[in-house]
Amino acid sequence: MNFISSYSTFIRNEISRLNLPDSPKNLYEPLDYLLSQEGKKIRPILTLLSAELFGGTMENAKHAAMAIEIFHNFTLVHDDIMDKAPLRRGKKSIHEKWNSNIAILSGDVLLVKAYEQLNLLKAELVPELLRVFNKTAIQVCEGQQMDMDFENKEHITEEEYIEMIRLKTSVLLGCALELGAIICNESEENRKKIYDFGVNIGIAFQIQDDILDLYGNPLKVGKQTGGDIIANKNTILSIIASNHANEKDLNELKNLKNLKNHQDKISRTQTIFNKIQVREKCTQVMQHYHTTAIHHFNSLNTSDISNDLLKLTDVLLKREF
Amino acid sequence: MNFISSYSTFIRNEISRLNLPDSPKNLYEPLDYLLSQEGKKIRPILTLLSAELFGGTMENAKHAAMAIEIFHNFTLVHDDIMDKAPLRRGKKSIHEKWNSNIAILSGDVLLVKAYEQLNLLKAELVPELLRVFNKTAIQVCEGQQMDMDFENKEHITEEEYIEMIRLKTSVLLGCALELGAIICNESEENRKKIYDFGVNIGIAFQIQDDILDLYGNPLKVGKQTGGDIIANKNTILSIIASNHANEKDLNELKNLKNLKNHQDKISRTQTIFNKIQVREKCTQVMQHYHTTAIHHFNSLNTSDISNDLLKLTDVLLKREF
Repeated sequence: MNFISSYSTFIRNEISRLNLPDSPKNLYEPLDYLLSQEGKKIRPILTLLSAELFGGTMENAKHAAMAIEIFHNFTLVHDDIMDKAPLRRGKKSIHEKWNSNIAILSGDVLLVKAYEQLNLLKAELVPELLRVFNKTAIQVCEGQQMDMDFENKEHITEEEYIEMIRLKTSVLLGCALELGAIICNESEENRKKIYDFGVNIGIAFQIQDDILDLYGNPLKVGKQTGGDIIANKNTILSIIASNHANEKDLNELKNLKNLKNHQDKISRTQTIFNKIQVREKCTQVMQHYHTTAIHHFNSLNTSDISNDLLKLTDVLLKREF
Repeated sequence: MNFISSYSTFIRNEISRLNLPDSPKNLYEPLDYLLSQEGKKIRPILTLLSAELFGGTMENAKHAAMAIEIFHNFTLVHDDIMDKAPLRRGKKSIHEKWNSNIAILSGDVLLVKAYEQLNLLKAELVPELLRVFNKTAIQVCEGQQMDMDFENKEHITEEEYIEMIRLKTSVLLGCALELGAIICNESEENRKKIYDFGVNIGIAFQIQDDILDLYGNPLKVGKQTGGDIIANKNTILSIIASNHANEKDLNELKNLKNLKNHQDKISRTQTIFNKIQVREKCTQVMQHYHTTAIHHFNSLNTSDISNDLLKLTDVLLKREF
């Protein structure tokens, strides 16, 4: 995916030009640490590609892309506190390396910094960019709350789960793309289509993430498989399994949650999953969202459609099996 | 201060019209709980009075006032987590009544909601309102970080302490007033003067808060005096005391920090404070900022100066001795 690297280099270069102050050290060191990490920069690249698709340039769209990237990092910092995640991109998370208070406050500053970036765009576009960005930011918080609520919820339907991942992760992809379109003064119709493309790609991607956690090639995914089963995490796999299992298998799945032996837990859960054809059912759901996404993309009303966005999402959705 | 109550009623009415959604319950119930609490609503009233001073109306300025009020509540929610404060306005703080994760996320939503309010103002004013608001929001976070850093700092100068309270609490008062001026298309000069008025009033107010904690009338302040001494909190009193005490008194002040008997701790600390005339010195510092504030106010270039702002700040600074 070589064509992507020029875009991610562009974003990394913009990040290095942020010029964060040195003081207070405990506020800005964590931000520097986080923002300078490697990472695919998918979300800001979506904004850049969207602007280019609609006739704009990376230069026009760079502050919108940065707002998206900085907002995404804000969610990572606060989510990692809430999820007690010790690592992020293979490095200590901020609340681990410093402490929770510093992580809360650094996250807050990041959110404001995202708004600073939006305000660097053309003044007459700012209110509309702000409206879409605010709506998305609220939805991302709602999705994170739903995710936390699910931990204590007995029964989750497939629809509820999809709605949670739509809010928590997918709307930000839609927003990233729509900001690029707004910058190019695109029609409401095209804005809605590119947004829907992003949201559906996001849902497909998240479902694939769940599938890969169990069925991915460990060498390609870069971690041992079955982590979600060990952690008793709700995923599209566990939800589809619960909703299709007979009473006996359902009880077995419940009992397996308390099993201490990890390998045993994974393989016995997987045996039931296989019997119910969980992988196939989940792949169908993923493909449904992928197809819907492509449909929205193909219905865009533009004279000169570049495929770079489709190429990027293909790379994303064909990885690591 | 009866003229204030009509303004605070106006703000409370606006808050009740926010129409927060019901779901996710764990996200919006805490916000409803917090925003519907009583409170003096000083900050949003500053915005309304500033707009009226410069020829605008409450109606013009209401969304700016709400942005300030909601932002202030955001800082309370996150600060209370960081300070482990169990109570807020006499009621359980959000992280106590729910939990820290919910408090982090509710705070995040509040910050976005503040931006939503800003975006309800006249589109052509939004970029400038946003610029001032963002700058202030960053400074407030920096002030909170400085405050946390001070807990582990051996020696704090008077200047460092004043800078911390300027950032943590005073710039928001300046911003509240400046937003009112921006809405009325005021000159840069008047904007700067009303901002400086607010910042200096804020510093005076915070210094007075420190003085009242020890020297206030418990019946009027509504709590026992000496809480800051019991908690070994850095205040303008303790800092001025440290900077003016001789070596013997300085050692005594240090040793007193470990004293378990609260009454003894307060009275022996106060004896040293009195000897160094800490109260008088702090009152002088407070009066300096108050005088500076009045000077900025009086130099405003407007044809029709109402005193409501001065009346409000007089009420604030003459309370509870």
